[in-house]
Amino acid sequence: MSQPQWWQAACRQPDSAAEAGARARQAQLTKPAGALGQLEAIAIQLAGLQGREQPQIQRPWLSLFAGDHGVVAEGVSAYPQAVTAQMLHNFVNGGAAVSVLARVQQIPLEVVDLGTIDLDLELPGVRHLRLGAGTANFAQGPAMSVEQCQLALAAGRDALLRAQAINADLFLAGEMGIGNTTAATALACALSAASPAELVGPGTGLDRAGVVHKQAIIERALTLHGSQLAEPFEALRRVGGFELAALSGAYLACAQAGIPVLVDGFICSAAALCALRLNPACAPWLLFAHAGAEPGHRALLAILEAQPVLDLGLRLGEGSGAALALPLIKLACELHAGMATFQQAAVTERQA
Amino acid sequence: MSQPQWWQAACRQPDSAAEAGARARQAQLTKPAGALGQLEAIAIQLAGLQGREQPQIQRPWLSLFAGDHGVVAEGVSAYPQAVTAQMLHNFVNGGAAVSVLARVQQIPLEVVDLGTIDLDLELPGVRHLRLGAGTANFAQGPAMSVEQCQLALAAGRDALLRAQAINADLFLAGEMGIGNTTAATALACALSAASPAELVGPGTGLDRAGVVHKQAIIERALTLHGSQLAEPFEALRRVGGFELAALSGAYLACAQAGIPVLVDGFICSAAALCALRLNPACAPWLLFAHAGAEPGHRALLAILEAQPVLDLGLRLGEGSGAALALPLIKLACELHAGMATFQQAAVTERQA
Repeated sequence: MSQPQWWQAACRQPDSAAEAGARARQAQLTKPAGALGQLEAIAIQLAGLQGREQPQIQRPWLSLFAGDHGVVAEGVSAYPQAVTAQMLHNFVNGGAAVSVLARVQQIPLEVVDLGTIDLDLELPGVRHLRLGAGTANFAQGPAMSVEQCQLALAAGRDALLRAQAINADLFLAGEMGIGNTTAATALACALSAASPAELVGPGTGLDRAGVVHKQAIIERALTLHGSQLAEPFEALRRVGGFELAALSGAYLACAQAGIPVLVDGFICSAAALCALRLNPACAPWLLFAHAGAEPGHRALLAILEAQPVLDLGLRLGEGSGAALALPLIKLACELHAGMATFQQAAVTERQA
Repeated sequence: MSQPQWWQAACRQPDSAAEAGARARQAQLTKPAGALGQLEAIAIQLAGLQGREQPQIQRPWLSLFAGDHGVVAEGVSAYPQAVTAQMLHNFVNGGAAVSVLARVQQIPLEVVDLGTIDLDLELPGVRHLRLGAGTANFAQGPAMSVEQCQLALAAGRDALLRAQAINADLFLAGEMGIGNTTAATALACALSAASPAELVGPGTGLDRAGVVHKQAIIERALTLHGSQLAEPFEALRRVGGFELAALSGAYLACAQAGIPVLVDGFICSAAALCALRLNPACAPWLLFAHAGAEPGHRALLAILEAQPVLDLGLRLGEGSGAALALPLIKLACELHAGMATFQQAAVTERQA
């Protein structure tokens, strides 16, 4: 990995003039200054990212990345690995939470299978990339080969290119993969000063003993891979997962293309941290949808210095939290553009 | 007030069979149990309120109640009283935050002027009730006469009747009134064990000295009215306001008619507390939209045992927080109705 990689190339710079214009506009809208709280900050941030004083979200896009995890062999999940493929079926058949949220809100939803244990799986409507029959068990060795990890990162970039083809103005991503809270926890620990004890949690529903076991597996893996984890690509390759790499690649490609990202839950936040370590300049392009119920998510958001929009106790993944935050992002833009100024409405401003 | 009043009449009982059916359905949807967090609880609660296992929100309604407050003479607001009337104009002209939120979401919005300092005010699109030229200064005497307070409560019931006429399935309410955080704080203190120091805040933007002064005015008023405040109607009449009474009346009428309510911010929460004191049986019908930035709102929500949907640092009122929470309430219903069950999707349930 000594040669420059595509993800290290420059990211777009937010437009500071548009951002300043949006900030000035907010101060003139008929409300006490700051009364719309976080929605004001979102409108101002998006103005900088979209390069216009009045940003709009009209064409969101959602890519859902799925993959299996070899570390499930260590008994770290409440569900069998076969569920990953079953849920792929459910996503395209419209029965999953994210399917409902995308349908109701008319968000184009694409489902990318990076590699499940059934390499013969062929589901209409799913893009099968077959990078492997799931990752290898990272408690025993690297989860991915260098080539697999590069292909998974590129798969994220390819998703962004498809979003760009429909002129998407906000990129949402989701994930599915039995065992992926284990990989996300290991990856986040490798990329930060956090310990497994701080970030580990029940995932889809482990009991207390299960969480203790999961923590021990993660600790063992971090010890096994040791100082190799200091380099972010190596960390991703060794203890990450296909969908984690695809998410990171998509986020980085979005920042390079100038398309704002709405980051979903715990797994996506770990991928966002990885994207930031691979190329810190992507930071301004990441908006965070929600603080989830997975206990480590709050600590991870603090590491990311993120201000999530929602706090509903979600722990589903799939991009569901991002799709649920979307209406508020859109309404923040509508308020910013649609409200009258004090002058337009002839409303008296605050007394000095 | 010794005779029975309309607001003391029975409230509708939630349908416990529909609620149980919805709870059972949630457990069968293709996600780990509880993974949709608060949205699951909302769908289950609405099932009980609407009396059907799969609730829907198709016809929300928003009544905005405005009124002036005599206590503004004590210097408790950052804005002059004239702003109440100016904002009425802005509401019907479409420039206010709530106007934008209602327009974009196609929520019918009605604006009810219960009584501003300009009794000749006549604005197209505003329902002028002219109960008085604002309330009297409650730091010197009762804010309202018995008749005014009864008329204001009935104005809330009348709003519910108009909502019923279009078959509204969710009642949103908002308020506007320079000085009304002072009245709401006084009322909430009168109706609970909280002190002014715990609930007082900057409202539209008082500085620290302004807040200290506001607290002193509220403390003086609570002392002035003394033990008369023990009876909730008297508390409302003495230290409340026209719009606070209308909100309480609307909430109570909704509970009697069986229409769920989405409570907005600090002022609306004080009115909800008043409704609960006037008739505790209204409790199941109140959903809470958000925890706002006004410092006392969190304490007030704790008194109400409320689980607000949003936490965005809002402090605007107008019903804006309720209108912002609406998409999530609707999506909670869509997820509940639209997701596949494990059986439908042939997805393996959790391992025992």
